[in-house]
Amino acid sequence: MNKFKAIKEAAYRANMQLPDLGLVLFTFGNASAADHASGVFAIKPSGVAYPELTPEMMVVVDFDGNVVDGNLRPSSDTKTHAVLYKHWPGIGGIVHTHATYATAWAQSQRDIPIYGTTHADHLTIDIPCAPPMADERIAGNYEYETGLQILDYFKQHNLDYEEVEMILIGNHAPFTWGKTVDKAVYNSAVLEYVAKMATLTEQINPEAPRLKDSLIKKHFERKHGPGSYYGQAAR
Amino acid sequence: MNKFKAIKEAAYRANMQLPDLGLVLFTFGNASAADHASGVFAIKPSGVAYPELTPEMMVVVDFDGNVVDGNLRPSSDTKTHAVLYKHWPGIGGIVHTHATYATAWAQSQRDIPIYGTTHADHLTIDIPCAPPMADERIAGNYEYETGLQILDYFKQHNLDYEEVEMILIGNHAPFTWGKTVDKAVYNSAVLEYVAKMATLTEQINPEAPRLKDSLIKKHFERKHGPGSYYGQAAR
Amino acid sequence: MNKFKAIKEAAYRANMQLPDLGLVLFTFGNASAADHASGVFAIKPSGVAYPELTPEMMVVVDFDGNVVDGNLRPSSDTKTHAVLYKHWPGIGGIVHTHATYATAWAQSQRDIPIYGTTHADHLTIDIPCAPPMADERIAGNYEYETGLQILDYFKQHNLDYEEVEMILIGNHAPFTWGKTVDKAVYNSAVLEYVAKMATLTEQINPEAPRLKDSLIKKHFERKHGPGSYYGQAAR
Amino acid sequence: MNKFKAIKEAAYRANMQLPDLGLVLFTFGNASAADHASGVFAIKPSGVAYPELTPEMMVVVDFDGNVVDGNLRPSSDTKTHAVLYKHWPGIGGIVHTHATYATAWAQSQRDIPIYGTTHADHLTIDIPCAPPMADERIAGNYEYETGLQILDYFKQHNLDYEEVEMILIGNHAPFTWGKTVDKAVYNSAVLEYVAKMATLTEQINPEAPRLKDSLIKKHFERKHGPGSYYGQAAR
Repeated sequence: MNKFKAIKEAAYRANMQLPDLGLVLFTFGNASAADHASGVFAIKPSGVAYPELTPEMMVVVDFDGNVVDGNLRPSSDTKTHAVLYKHWPGIGGIVHTHATYATAWAQSQRDIPIYGTTHADHLTIDIPCAPPMADERIAGNYEYETGLQILDYFKQHNLDYEEVEMILIGNHAPFTWGKTVDKAVYNSAVLEYVAKMATLTEQINPEAPRLKDSLIKKHFERKHGPGSYYGQAAR
Repeated sequence: MNKFKAIKEAAYRANMQLPDLGLVLFTFGNASAADHASGVFAIKPSGVAYPELTPEMMVVVDFDGNVVDGNLRPSSDTKTHAVLYKHWPGIGGIVHTHATYATAWAQSQRDIPIYGTTHADHLTIDIPCAPPMADERIAGNYEYETGLQILDYFKQHNLDYEEVEMILIGNHAPFTWGKTVDKAVYNSAVLEYVAKMATLTEQINPEAPRLKDSLIKKHFERKHGPGSYYGQAAR
Repeated sequence: MNKFKAIKEAAYRANMQLPDLGLVLFTFGNASAADHASGVFAIKPSGVAYPELTPEMMVVVDFDGNVVDGNLRPSSDTKTHAVLYKHWPGIGGIVHTHATYATAWAQSQRDIPIYGTTHADHLTIDIPCAPPMADERIAGNYEYETGLQILDYFKQHNLDYEEVEMILIGNHAPFTWGKTVDKAVYNSAVLEYVAKMATLTEQINPEAPRLKDSLIKKHFERKHGPGSYYGQAAR
Repeated sequence: MNKFKAIKEAAYRANMQLPDLGLVLFTFGNASAADHASGVFAIKPSGVAYPELTPEMMVVVDFDGNVVDGNLRPSSDTKTHAVLYKHWPGIGGIVHTHATYATAWAQSQRDIPIYGTTHADHLTIDIPCAPPMADERIAGNYEYETGLQILDYFKQHNLDYEEVEMILIGNHAPFTWGKTVDKAVYNSAVLEYVAKMATLTEQINPEAPRLKDSLIKKHFERKHGPGSYYGQAAR
C-alpha cells in the first residue's frame, strides 16, 4: 500500500484543485497521477464528492484498467486514462472536467481558434475538437474507445502529445494531460481561460483574425523554445 | 413537534445549500422535504432571508396545503409543492429557484436542447419548458394551478417524473425534485449548469446539433441503466 | 453629533453591503439614509474606499445639499440624493451604483423589458431608462440636474415613486430608492439580477415576448396587493 | 539592498492585488514600481506563482533592462516596462495582465468605445488598441519592441501618457500605468470593468451610440479638471 503513497497523494491534491479552480461542479471531473515504472496510476473514486475525498480513497489501477489497490470503484472514465498512459510514456497525469466554456466548445464541435498570445504561450495550433464518437464505438467499450479516439486523432493529425496537451471530445468535454498531474491541472485551467476569451473575442468581433504565424512562433518559443527565457531556469 | 424533526432538518439543510450553490438571491427560492407516511412536508417560511433561517422555523404542511406545525407563514409557493407531493408518491423533495440561466430559458419560453453528455448523464430529453399559464388559471388559485400545470404537462407529454426530475415554467422559473430533497437540490444545480452551457453552446455555434441518440442512451445508462457503473454500488 | 447616529449607522451599513453584493468596484457607488423629521440625510464621503469606511465618516447633509455634520467632503452625487429627498417625502434611502448589467442597459439607452415573474414581483412596468441629459443641463449644476431629471421623468410618465423604486440614467448608471435604505440596497441588487436575466433572455431568444398582463398583475399583487400573501405579516 | 526596500514592497503589494482583483490566472501578469531618482524599478520574478511571492523576491532592474539587485530572473516582460519608464518620467508604476475582457478586446483588435460615464470618469477617448506588431519587430527584441510600439502609438496619435493611462496591444493583452503602481493596478481593474460593460452594451444594443461630448467633458473634469470635486482634497 505504502508503495502507492506518492501517486495517491499527487492524485488527491490534483483532484482537490479542480473545485478550487472553478473547473468542476459536484463530481463532474477526475484527475489521475501515474507511475510508469510500476505501470499504474492513482485516480479518483467514482461519484464521491470532493469534500469527502482523502488520499487513501484514491484507487490504483494498471494500464489495462484493472484495479490493483483500493476499496472503491474507480472513476467511470478510468479506461480512458489507462489507454492514454499505456501509449504515451511521457505523461504523468491526466485531468478530465466538464468546465463550462471548454465543454461549450466541445458541444459546439468546433476547434478553439488561436486568437492571442495567451493561447500561443501554451500551444501553436487551434485547440482540437475530436468529432463525436462513431456509433459502433459507442456501443462497445465506451471509455476505452474514448482513449483510442484521442490516440487516433493525434495520429491522423500528426500531433505530438508533448506539444499539444489538451483535446476536446465533441459533444462531451475536455481532457488534458502533462508530464505531471499538476501540469495537467494547470492545462485544464488554461484551456478554460482560453476558451472563455475566445468566446468573448468572437462576440466582440465576429471577424477577429487568427493570431499571425510570427507571433505564434515567438510566444511559444519564449516559453518552450531552446532559448526560452520565461520562468526560473534554476528552479 | 419532535416527530417532524427529520424533515425540518432536511428542509433546512437543503434551503441553506441554495445560496451556497449560487442559485438564489435574497429569498428567491425554497426547498421542501416530505414524509409520505405522515402525508406532510417541511418547507421554508415565506420571505425570510437565508442567514436568519433555523431548522425550527421550517413550516410543516399537509398535501392539501394546510399548515400542520410551525408559527410562520409557509413559502408562497407551498401549494405547488403540495400538489406535486400529493400526486407523485416517489418524490421526497422539491426545490424552486430563480437561478439566472435556468430562469432566462424559462423567460425565453424554450426547452433547453440536449447538447452534450453532461445533460445526458441526467436526462435523455430536452429540459421541458411549460408554456405560461392560461389566464383563467392565473385568476384562480395560482400556486395550486402551477402544480396542476406541471402534472398536466407530464401527462400530455407522457413523461415519467422519476426519469425527468425538472421543468421550467414559461416566464417564471424552474422547479426540480427527486427521491430526496438533497437530490432535488442537486438537480437544481445541474439544471443551472446545463442551462449555462447550452447558452454558451448556441453563442459559439448557432448551428450546434443536438446530441445523437447513441450517445444520449450510452451516457444515461452509464449512470442509470441496469448495468450502471457510475458511483459506488455499496454506498 | 449623537442625534445623527441612527442615519449614519444605517448609511454605513448600507454602503458596506454594496461590495458584498458585488454591486460596486472600488468607490463606484454610494448609499444614503434620510431623517425627514430633521430634514437631513447621511451619505458616504467622496472617493473613500469601502474597507476604510466607518459610521463616523458618513457626512450629514440637508435637503439643499449643505453639509450639516462631518469632516469629509460628501459623495459627488450628493445633490442628486438631496433633490430626491426634498421632493419625495416617502423615501428613506437612496443607492447609486455602476453595477455591470444595470449600467450596460443604461449605456444601451434601453428600458429593461419585463420578461418574467422575478421582475413582476417588484414592479409592473419595464424598468425605465431616462435619456441622457440635455446639454444645457449638463453645463449647469450637473448632479442637481440629475435629480431634477429623475423627478421630471416620473412626472412626464405619470409614475409613482412608491411603486417604481428604480431608474436608469442613459449613458450613466442606475439609481434606486425605498422606504428605508436597506430597501434601496435590496432594490439595487434586484435590478442587477433582473438586468442580467433580461440580457440572457434576449440572447437565448431574440423574439422573447414580454410577460403577459395577467401574470404581471398576479405576481405584483401577491407581494404588494391588499390581499398579499408573501412574507410574514407579523414581522 | 535596503535602499530598494520601498519599491520592492510597493511592487510586491501591487502584484498581490492582481489575483485578489480577479485580473490574473496563475502567473499571467506582472506589476512594477519605479524610483526615477535612482533610475530603477522593482518587478515580479518570472513564472513564480503569486502565493509564493515575497517582497524580497522582487527583482530590481535599471531602465535599460539590466538586473541591479535580486537572485531571480525578472518577468519576461521586463524590457517593456524599462522602455516606458525610460521615456515617461511621470509614471511610477506599470501593470500587465491577461484579464479576460480586456484581453478579448485586444484579441478582437478593436478600441473600446466610450459608452458611458464610468469610462469618462477615467479617460475621454476610446481605449486604444495598438495593431499587432510588425513581423520585423517580432523577430527582433520582442519585449523591448513592445515598449517602443506603445511609445510610437502615443506619438502618432498625439496622446498624453498622463491623461491616457492604458493601452491594449492587438492579439496580446493590456498594459496600464500611473503616477504610482497602486494607480496602475487601479487602472487595470477599471479597464477590465469598462471592457466588460462595453461588451454587454453592444450585446444589449448593437446600435448603442458613443457618449456625447458634453458628458465626456463633464465627467472627466469632475474628477480631473481644475475645479474637480471628486474625492477628498485634503487626502
